[in-house]
Amino acid sequence: MNWEEFKKRKIGEKELVIAIAQDVNSKQVLMTAFQDEEAFNKTQETKELYFYSTSKNRLWKKGEQSGNVMSVKQTLIDCDADAILYLVECKAACHEGYDTCFFRDLSGKTVGEKRFDPKDVY
Amino acid sequence: MNWEEFKKRKIGEKELVIAIAQDVNSKQVLMTAFQDEEAFNKTQETKELYFYSTSKNRLWKKGEQSGNVMSVKQTLIDCDADAILYLVECKAACHEGYDTCFFRDLSGKTVGEKRFDPKDVY
Repeated sequence: MNWEEFKKRKIGEKELVIAIAQDVNSKQVLMTAFQDEEAFNKTQETKELYFYSTSKNRLWKKGEQSGNVMSVKQTLIDCDADAILYLVECKAACHEGYDTCFFRDLSGKTVGEKRFDPKDVY
Repeated sequence: MNWEEFKKRKIGEKELVIAIAQDVNSKQVLMTAFQDEEAFNKTQETKELYFYSTSKNRLWKKGEQSGNVMSVKQTLIDCDADAILYLVECKAACHEGYDTCFFRDLSGKTVGEKRFDPKDVY
């Protein structure tokens, strides 16, 4: 499967697909963001996860600042080909220091596990 | 946390957040789609998962045709509040009859498990 076959979604000026990172060991959902063609191709080439940052409008290697890169072990595609699920290995996903970006529930209660102090990293 | 606090993304004419469904037991990622305010609120009220269908441009109750509704057990929010992770119970997520919509890998190989024949359901 290559980029042409995906059903892209126009967000701002870009054609993007949803990309989800899931921990291959714990099965925790770690984060979700978007990929453009460059991010998709870089991920295939390097086996490390790249996104397209819709806030910075540029290619974004996950962990480029913190060093917590995501090593891709398996790549799954959904039925309508508009989303990609990456099974990854990663020390900590969230820039706030938690294992996953989904570290709190609707009430605001923290359910994630703290892995590092952001002050030590950024 | 209520709808006003989410960081919405403009897709077409709507302000949406990404919603991911994960099986609370198997931890499989089942599907991803979007929610608008109505879908978010209906999900909170009923504890069954609703999306906003960007193809049909309307509220979409997951399983409305197949009966394979998703019963919400936990709701998690990501660090920048633009995505919601729903931990759900569900018999089969995919309209193609598989346990998850992410039933194939990049090479096209089927990795999901068939749960029903779509011809019997739709």
